[in-house]
Formats: sequence, C-alpha cells, structure tokens
Amino acid sequence: MRIKVIIPNTSGEFRNAQVEHRKGVAHPGTVVDVVSLPHGPVSIESAADEARAAPYLVEEVCRAAAEGYDAVTVDCAADVALRAVKEIADIPVVSAGEAAFLVAMAIGDRFGVITVLPATAAVIGQNIRAMGLTQRCACVRAVEVPVLDLDTCPGVEERVYQECQQAITADGADVIVLGCTGMARLARRLAERLPVPVVEPGAAAVKLAELMVILRLRPSRRAYPRPAPKQVR
Amino acid sequence: MRIKVIIPNTSGEFRNAQVEHRKGVAHPGTVVDVVSLPHGPVSIESAADEARAAPYLVEEVCRAAAEGYDAVTVDCAADVALRAVKEIADIPVVSAGEAAFLVAMAIGDRFGVITVLPATAAVIGQNIRAMGLTQRCACVRAVEVPVLDLDTCPGVEERVYQECQQAITADGADVIVLGCTGMARLARRLAERLPVPVVEPGAAAVKLAELMVILRLRPSRRAYPRPAPKQVR
Amino acid sequence: MRIKVIIPNTSGEFRNAQVEHRKGVAHPGTVVDVVSLPHGPVSIESAADEARAAPYLVEEVCRAAAEGYDAVTVDCAADVALRAVKEIADIPVVSAGEAAFLVAMAIGDRFGVITVLPATAAVIGQNIRAMGLTQRCACVRAVEVPVLDLDTCPGVEERVYQECQQAITADGADVIVLGCTGMARLARRLAERLPVPVVEPGAAAVKLAELMVILRLRPSRRAYPRPAPKQVR
Amino acid sequence: MRIKVIIPNTSGEFRNAQVEHRKGVAHPGTVVDVVSLPHGPVSIESAADEARAAPYLVEEVCRAAAEGYDAVTVDCAADVALRAVKEIADIPVVSAGEAAFLVAMAIGDRFGVITVLPATAAVIGQNIRAMGLTQRCACVRAVEVPVLDLDTCPGVEERVYQECQQAITADGADVIVLGCTGMARLARRLAERLPVPVVEPGAAAVKLAELMVILRLRPSRRAYPRPAPKQVR
Amino acid sequence: MRIKVIIPNTSGEFRNAQVEHRKGVAHPGTVVDVVSLPHGPVSIESAADEARAAPYLVEEVCRAAAEGYDAVTVDCAADVALRAVKEIADIPVVSAGEAAFLVAMAIGDRFGVITVLPATAAVIGQNIRAMGLTQRCACVRAVEVPVLDLDTCPGVEERVYQECQQAITADGADVIVLGCTGMARLARRLAERLPVPVVEPGAAAVKLAELMVILRLRPSRRAYPRPAPKQVR
Amino acid sequence: MRIKVIIPNTSGEFRNAQVEHRKGVAHPGTVVDVVSLPHGPVSIESAADEARAAPYLVEEVCRAAAEGYDAVTVDCAADVALRAVKEIADIPVVSAGEAAFLVAMAIGDRFGVITVLPATAAVIGQNIRAMGLTQRCACVRAVEVPVLDLDTCPGVEERVYQECQQAITADGADVIVLGCTGMARLARRLAERLPVPVVEPGAAAVKLAELMVILRLRPSRRAYPRPAPKQVR
Repeated sequence: MRIKVIIPNTSGEFRNAQVEHRKGVAHPGTVVDVVSLPHGPVSIESAADEARAAPYLVEEVCRAAAEGYDAVTVDCAADVALRAVKEIADIPVVSAGEAAFLVAMAIGDRFGVITVLPATAAVIGQNIRAMGLTQRCACVRAVEVPVLDLDTCPGVEERVYQECQQAITADGADVIVLGCTGMARLARRLAERLPVPVVEPGAAAVKLAELMVILRLRPSRRAYPRPAPKQVR
Repeated sequence: MRIKVIIPNTSGEFRNAQVEHRKGVAHPGTVVDVVSLPHGPVSIESAADEARAAPYLVEEVCRAAAEGYDAVTVDCAADVALRAVKEIADIPVVSAGEAAFLVAMAIGDRFGVITVLPATAAVIGQNIRAMGLTQRCACVRAVEVPVLDLDTCPGVEERVYQECQQAITADGADVIVLGCTGMARLARRLAERLPVPVVEPGAAAVKLAELMVILRLRPSRRAYPRPAPKQVR
Repeated sequence: MRIKVIIPNTSGEFRNAQVEHRKGVAHPGTVVDVVSLPHGPVSIESAADEARAAPYLVEEVCRAAAEGYDAVTVDCAADVALRAVKEIADIPVVSAGEAAFLVAMAIGDRFGVITVLPATAAVIGQNIRAMGLTQRCACVRAVEVPVLDLDTCPGVEERVYQECQQAITADGADVIVLGCTGMARLARRLAERLPVPVVEPGAAAVKLAELMVILRLRPSRRAYPRPAPKQVR
Repeated sequence: MRIKVIIPNTSGEFRNAQVEHRKGVAHPGTVVDVVSLPHGPVSIESAADEARAAPYLVEEVCRAAAEGYDAVTVDCAADVALRAVKEIADIPVVSAGEAAFLVAMAIGDRFGVITVLPATAAVIGQNIRAMGLTQRCACVRAVEVPVLDLDTCPGVEERVYQECQQAITADGADVIVLGCTGMARLARRLAERLPVPVVEPGAAAVKLAELMVILRLRPSRRAYPRPAPKQVR
Repeated sequence: MRIKVIIPNTSGEFRNAQVEHRKGVAHPGTVVDVVSLPHGPVSIESAADEARAAPYLVEEVCRAAAEGYDAVTVDCAADVALRAVKEIADIPVVSAGEAAFLVAMAIGDRFGVITVLPATAAVIGQNIRAMGLTQRCACVRAVEVPVLDLDTCPGVEERVYQECQQAITADGADVIVLGCTGMARLARRLAERLPVPVVEPGAAAVKLAELMVILRLRPSRRAYPRPAPKQVR
Repeated sequence: MRIKVIIPNTSGEFRNAQVEHRKGVAHPGTVVDVVSLPHGPVSIESAADEARAAPYLVEEVCRAAAEGYDAVTVDCAADVALRAVKEIADIPVVSAGEAAFLVAMAIGDRFGVITVLPATAAVIGQNIRAMGLTQRCACVRAVEVPVLDLDTCPGVEERVYQECQQAITADGADVIVLGCTGMARLARRLAERLPVPVVEPGAAAVKLAELMVILRLRPSRRAYPRPAPKQVR
C-alpha cells in the first residue's frame, strides 16, 4: 500500500521534521511519502492561510491517484479544504484534524484541542461545529506559539503541557487532541505526563487511511459529488 | 458610502447580469461597484471551485479598503472563504449566503434553500451547520441547473418554483432563500407566486453591508483574529 | 419611508431618552416616530412585565399600518410578544433583541448579552433558546441595575463595562449585545473601550426594518399565520 | 389539598366541558376548582390570543395563594405566559403543555403533538424549542378545527385520529400528546384505537401539580426570579 | 394501588434506610414495597456495576405484574438498564434518575446533579445526553463518597451542600437533583439551606409512578418494542 | 498483535459464520480470535437482550489482558455495555457500532443504519443520541429479520438492499452502516450495488482496534474511571 501524506504548507524544514513520525506508525507493508506544497503559505495558522493554500492542495491531491497512491492524508489539524479534497479524490483521503477527533471520540467523552494561535483555534472550533461534534468537544485552546517556532521556541513542551492541564481541569477534557501536526514530536512525552490519552492527528490520519484502503472505503459521492470539469482562468 | 460587490467567479456575463440587481436595492447615497475575480473558476458550484477561487477572492477583499470602499460583499450564496475574508478585511465584509440566512430567520421559522447543483447544496448545508443554524433550516434543494445556464436553460423559473413548492410542502420551509446569486432575476416573480417570502442573497448582502457601515460594525477581531504577515511562495 | 418605533413600556422619560438614538441611525429619507404604550408596566424587566404589556403592544402594532407606517420596531431587547406582533402585522415588524442577535452573528462567533436584572437575563436566555441560537450565545449577564435607573445610577457605564469584560474573558464572547435598549447611550463609549464590537439593539432594529422595507420582506404567513377575528371580552 | 385549574380563555361552555375531566383524575383528598378568565379571548389559538390573555391569567394566578390553593395549573397546551406564571406564584404552578411533554418523555422516545390550528401548532413548536426538547418531538400537527368547534364539528374524533396515525406512521411519533385541553373527552377513545399511549395535558397538569405539592417543590427563584413590585398604568 | 420499588443493588442496609422515604411520599391508598436484588453488586456506582446488576433487575421487574403490582420504580439515579425495564414490563415502570430530571425541568431551567463518584457522574452525564436533555443540565458533580458510606462518613451533608453551592454558583444550576437515591435523608435539610429546589429521585419516581397508574400510561410499545421470547443460556 | 473479538451472544453457528470476515481484514501480523459468551441470550436484538448478556460480556473483556491480548472488540452493532467494557479494560476495547459510526463520518455527511428488528433500531438510535451524533445520522431502519435468520431467510440481501435504497432516497443517507455484525457476508455485494459506501461494523472494529494498539491509545480513565473492586453477590 502507498500513502501520500500532503503537508499543506511550503516549509521544507517543517516537512523534514514530520517524516519519521508519519512513517513510524505505518504498517510494515505501507510506503509513506511525505510532501509539501510547491506554492502557498509557509505555515497554516488561519483561514486566510487556508484560502491561500487551498488550490495547490487540491492540485496535489488530484495527482495522487495517477501517481499510484492508494490513499492520501492531508497533514494539518485545521483540515484545509476538507470538502474539496474529498470531492476531487478517486482514492481515500483522510484529513488529520478530522481523523483525530473521530479517534478521540472512541476513547473519551469530550476532547480538548491544543493548537498554536488564537486564529487557528477559531478555525478548528468552527470545523468541529461544521462536523456536528460540538457536544463532544470540551475546548480548543491556543499556546500562542507560531507553527514554525514549535521546534525552536524554548519551553514549548511546558506551554503545551500547561494548556493540556487547563483543558482537563478547567474545561473537563478527558482526551487531548494535538491541534497542529507540528506538535507530533511532543505527543509521546505529553502522553506520559498527562492523566488522559493524547491523540496526534498526523499519525491518526495515516492509520485511518490504511483502514480505509483495507476496508475499501472512499468518500461518498452523495456527500461529496464529483465536480464536473470546468474552465479555470 | 461605497460598497464593493465581489463576485467570486471569473465570468463577465454573469457579472453583467447581476449589476442592476445589486445597485437597485442600495440607498440613493450608496455607490455600488460590482467586480469579478481575475483568476479562478468561471462559476462556483462545489467546494473544489471554492478552493480554486479562494486566494483570488482574499486578494480582492484585501484591496478594498485601500481603494476607498466602506464595505465589501462576497456575492455568492455558498459563502466562499467565509472566515478568511472576515480575517483579512479592515472594513465590514458581508457574505451573501450568511446574510440571507440571518434575514430569513427574522421573518420565518425554518428557511428552505434552493440552489443549483447537488454539490452546491452539500456545501451550503455544511455551511449552515458550521453556523450552528441547522435547527432553523428546513432543507437545501438543488434544481440541477448549472450556474451559467440559469439565464439560458428553458424552464428554469418553473424548476426553481417547483423546488420551492416542495421545500414548503414536503419539508416545512416557511421562507425561501435563493441558493445562488445568479437567481436574482427570478426573485420578484417567485415572491409573487409563492405563499412565503423569498430572500435574494445578493441583495440581502448589500443591505446588510449598508447596515454595518451605519452601525460602525466590523468582524470581531476575537472571532476573526487578523493574521500576521507571512511568507507566501 | 416611515418607521414606528414602539417602546413597550409606559415611561415618558425613557422614551425621550431614546428618540435621538433611534432617529440618528435612520437613512435621511426615513421618518422615525418613537412611541410608548398607553397602558402597562413602566419598564420591562421580567416575563410578568411582558405579560402585562403584551395586549397593549399588540394593539399598538395593529394600528401601525393604518397610520401609514411602512414598518414597526419593537424597541425592547427582551423581545416582548415576539410571535404575536409578527402574526398581527401587515407590514414588516422587527424586534430589537432578535435584530441584535442576528446582526451579531454576522460579525462574531458567540455573542454575549449584558442586560439589567437576573429576571431579564433569564427571559433573554430563553428567547435565544427559542430561536435555536444557543450555540452562538456565550452568556447572558445582568448588571443588577433596573431599567429606569440606567441613566441616573452612578457608575452604570463602569458596571456594564465590567460585565462586558467578564463576558469576553470568562465566557468567550467575541461580540457584545446590549441587552436593554435603555443602554443605547452607552454603546459608543463601550465600543471604544472594548476589544470586540458592540451591537445596540434599538439601532439594529431600525436598520433591519429599513432593510425589510427595501427588500419587500414581511413575516411569513406560514410561520406566523394571521389569526382569524375573535371575540375578546 | 386544593388545586386551582385556570383555563386561560373566557368561554363558559369550554370550562363546563372540562370540569369532570380535571376532577376525575385527582386523588380523593384533592379539591379541584376549575375557573376561566374574566377578560380576554374566548379561546387560545395563536400567539396574539396568548398576548391578549396574558395579563388576566397572571392576575388570576397571583390570587391563588391568597385564596388558599396549594397549587395552580394553567389549563392550556399552548403554555400561555409560561415564564410569567412561574415568576409570580408562591405556590407550585404547572402548565398543561409542559406537563404533558415531560410525562410523554417518560414513556416514549419522540412525542407527536396534535393540536387545533396551524397557528397553534407554530406556537407549540416554538415552545418545545424554547424548552430545549426539539430532539424528543416528532411533529406538531393541526387538525384545522377551531377550539370552540371541537365538541360540535362532526367527525372531529376521526380527524384527530387520522392526524395521530400520520404522526406515528409518517413522523415516527411513539407517544401522542393532545395539543389542546379541549380534546380531553377524546383521550380515552384515542388511546384504545391507537398503538401508542395518549397523554392528555389537562389531566397531566393536575397530577403533576399534586406531585409538586407532596414533594414540596415550587418554581426555582433562580430560574424565575420574583419580580419586584412595579407601577403598572 | 401497589407499587414495587426495586433497588438495583444487594445491600440490605441500604434498603432499610430507604423504606420510610419511599413510603412517606405515597398517597394514603398506595401500598409501597421496597425490595433489593438477590444477586449483583452491593451498590451501583459505575457502568460496570450496572452491567452486573442488569439481568437480575430485569428479572425482578418481569415478576412485578404477576405479583399484582400496578407499577414499578427502579430506585437508582443512574437509571440502570433503563430501556430494558421499559421493554419487558406490562405495567408502568419509572426510573428514579429520569423521573427526577423531568420533574426538575418543570421548576427550573438547568438542573445540577450531585452524585457519589466520578464514575457515577460520567454514567449520569451520558444518560442525560442519551435522553436529549443536555441543554437543560448545568452539571453533574461528584462528592467522592461511595454509596454505602453516605450514612456513615462524617461530614457528608456538608460535602453535598458544598457541591450544590458550586453547581449553583459556578455552573448556573437553578434546581438540584440528588444523583443517588441513598442521599434521600439529606434532601429536606438541603432544601432548607439552598436557594433553589432540591429533587430527590426516589420520591420523584414513586409519585410519577402513581401518576402513570391514574393516567393509565405505560411505556410505548413503539419506543420500547416487547422482545420476543428467546433462548438464554 | 493479538485481538480478541467477543461476540456478545451464545450462538456457535453465528460465531462460525463471522470468523473469516473478522480475520480477513486484519493485517498479516495480527492474530484474531473470535469468541462467543458462555452464558446469555443466543442473539442480541433488544435492550433486554443486552441486559442479560452484559455481565458475561464484562467478564470476558476482563480476562482479555491476562490472556495476552493487545485489544478487544465487542462484535455487536448495538454496542452492548459500551461504557462498562471501557471502564474495566486495561487494553484498547472497540465496540463495533461505535467504530462503524466514526468511520462512516469520515467518508460521508449523514449515515443510515440498517439493522434487524424495530427493537434493535430503537436501541441503536438511542446509542447514537448518547454519543451526541444525532445530527450525523439520517435514519436507523429495520429489515424485520431476526439475527439468527439472516443467513437462512430467503431474500435477505434484497430486503437489506431495499432498506438501504430507502435510507438513501427517502432519508438522505450518504453512507450505509450495517446495523448487525451478522450482515457481514452481505457487505461486499451491497457495496457493489449501492451508490454510496457501506461500512461493516465488525471489520471496522477490528481495524480500529489495530489502530489503537499502534497509536498506544486506550479508553480515557477520566471518561471511564476504573471501578474499585466491589462485592458482587
């Protein structure tokens, strides 16, 4: 099985830091390729970033089937262009935020999301409402560290840990969903320190994509009708 | 007052057909300019279309304040890049679908939306859920006529009328929202024939934009934080 | 265009204090008349007050069309007899609380309402649930100052400001709706001091009424069937 | 124990037809007095009717404690002035529609309401939403027979029966709530003919009022703060 | 009338402590028998406890009609096997938690539940969601005292009182529902000390069972179809 | 990895028919053992059946970790004792109905469930509400064929197919979830004939269990506190 992990930003460093985390959870027989976008913002932290990345992401997803991939994951907890990528793919496409929320609901009652910036939190909060899952979400919190500083800013683990604790104690979260795939390297340590499970969206998406391939499931054409070819200027 | 109406597609004919409908509802002192996008799909009928139009729409909205406009409307019932345009504008920005739903709720209990294609209906249905308004929406129905055929396909008014009737009779709608701004020319006639009010989104957006300017209201920076400047490749 | 603003209480002083705020937001061509009720409570602060004002409000609304008005606003954030006034009017009728909630939803995600007394807050909270808008409301808070003391009680602006801050900080409100039309004089100052927009219901209602007249929209007879004439003892 | 059943209309005939049905379900030790209002509409079928009956109902409820009653029921499935009567009573006050919905939820999953006119159905539907019970309501249907014709119009039982059947078959109702206390005489026969239980609101209210007295429960003053005395003109 | 109160645990002491509280609220003509289960856990504090008690409870309920009872109550605020007991009974069956929530909604807006352990709180919280009543529930809190220690652990009343206060002040509860029938002896005192009504579930269930008998209501066979006889190994 | 699939009924034939379907979707390195319960009903079709199977299921789950399993699935679309099995397991435990609903939400908007009997449909419907997923469920339909007749009753595939078609056409389902793991043998054929994806719960559970093991996720102890040891008679 071949899975294409598409990071919808244009930062090579970000991509390099994710590769091992995505490959590490795949089954031995699964080939995982991790790619970034050729154009668009260097990171996704707002709806404006999403708007600017959207057409390039759609194009990248379009190519996947022709390239021989069995499935695609969109490696972003903010679920960029979530409907569009399901409309245009002929193969399973799994988005990291959505995958993580679904997995979290199987092990807890109300998940808390810890993400990067307030704008990102607002986007994720609305995504969850659009999915009809508000009742199952305890909170969406921001650590106020930009995506590309997550690996370099001192004390990031501690700040994420503190927000997780607040989500649990003040908001009643019983599962934590990391709200940025750039936090993948923190997942293991946080899971050890916190009294609740921690779901890392990038890994959840890879595993859910494998599941979809084995179960022969793809986005419903009734829910996501395939757009007719159309002139784009 | 100057209002910029941005149609998020690239069809000149479509634009020309809308101009009078938008100008016709403005107050005498309001200047209304209607523009299309320079790049992107010729019409918006799916999430994929929205993804491809999004960055050009964002750019067009960005320019509006510098051009001296007091407000912007996004002239599309599918609410393209709804969060993004609110994040990046320094002036009021009103999106046609959202405006129509809000106006409809002031005069009825549950609105029915009549739009063009099944994919458009699916997008609008999810927008309504993202807005938390599902309880107030009776249905979203599609006439299965593409946007750019609305003016030329024979029997369009009748097909829209039939779907409106179904929305009222079978689904319990007590207000109709036209689910495509390209249906503006049908609004008056439908309102005469139907037993319930008909809300035309393009006009609703222009009037709501005027309201916002007079009441000095703009998108909340807490709900829609302004994105920091960022490198886009 | 002529709009009749009906304040559903019987206090002349209250009326006098509102007049300029309502007229001030109307378009140049709009005539705004502000009236009180001839009978009923001096202020509306509870459901019991609403019950006692209701028949006189209904009568006043009934008269409006015959008097030549194009639209009516019910100038109360607690939305007195909201269904009844829509049932009996042949012209657009807009209620201030509802108008403000709808406008707030176009510029923010979750609005916070700041009103006078706990009983008023309870009424408004239930109105919002009846409208199906609970998901979009962060809180309804009371400053514990009666309506008729709003202009004379020292420190009112500060108390309202403090509750707004709490709504934003503790409850996550990203727009403020003033929960009493008697707070109109505070709106401008609060908007300057607070980090989020402030919606004043009386003004919102006047502007939404203008919108309804221009768009030729009235309450749906399916949602609000016109009552047959009936014997009243 | 003494219970005052207040019918919020002014029709003596209607009152006379109800008396035995209310007394018939009370415990032997309970005295039940059934009264109408001195002023107001002859029947309650719309929000406008409710507005016109409201102040007289409030006054009648106010008197009940002084008259020595232990509890009050408001004998109307449309729950006239529901919040107001709870605010002003010092004794338990139970409203018939609300009582019936709560009882229905203990024996079924989704109740269907069968009421008189479309306007009444609209009022009841919104009441149910205001109570936050929409998920538990399958439908609100109207037989299109006015309240005061229920006893004389030929074929009423059959029309009610047909709507009940539709509620069960087409809408999935698994309990029927009669949506007008004037249908009390039909309850027994309908229960025999239908495959689901039938809840009669007037009786449900009397029994729930008895329950409240024995359990020493009254409307919460936090939910329904007692209004301060106030000048009414 | 004869009512069988079934406590779904196996503790004789617990049963003895409840008897007077259940009999005390019944009408003079009602015979109340209080029984425990012959097998199963000594107390119900978790879903695992419920699973272990379920078959014995079902059997005990099955026997009730043959024993000549007119109604059954399941005396547990965690609503053990709620659907199952309704499916298999030919007589009214009322469960204590559900009864208390319904009664609470008639006197307040949002009830707060105070129960024994965190696991019990989690079970009750999910029950409330399964009933579709989440909007009407302010909180479910645990005093962290096991069921069988409620009568002996020093300071229990104070701990319950403190949690009630928190429910009211911090969570906005306007009615308290005791979340364990073993708290019955505390109900009267708490009601005196708290500013809101207190609903005791065991008593609420007995009274609601009486109501069901008089109104001739039983669980709907559409909502709770009677299981066909089946081989059980 | 070793996964224990527990079928919560006592029918050996049923078990034998499932084995290949469960093993067939597992990864090569996964050992799948399929077991039935030693005691309890021969099939699960109602809440009463669930109540009677619950303690034996709990016991079987308890043993799994000691037996060296890495995860457990509860192989029933009606999610028997869903909370209890999560409370008592030290390893991941995935229930088939829940797993299928979560997977369905990743590929469609609103899923339709096709199950065996009306009682089963009622149980599943309430499970979905308890999970807070009502907005995402189009319908739960019953083919009126008992579980143990699914393999022998003539025309079963056609009946299931017809209900699937109704779910899609009349109720708007865009994904089908089979509502009984005994329908596993039909899944492939239905998927070929229907215009939407078909999710088979037993397989979905096995794959989700594998995912949980690789991602090191288990039920949250905050959501599902571990019950203290307790005397069971």
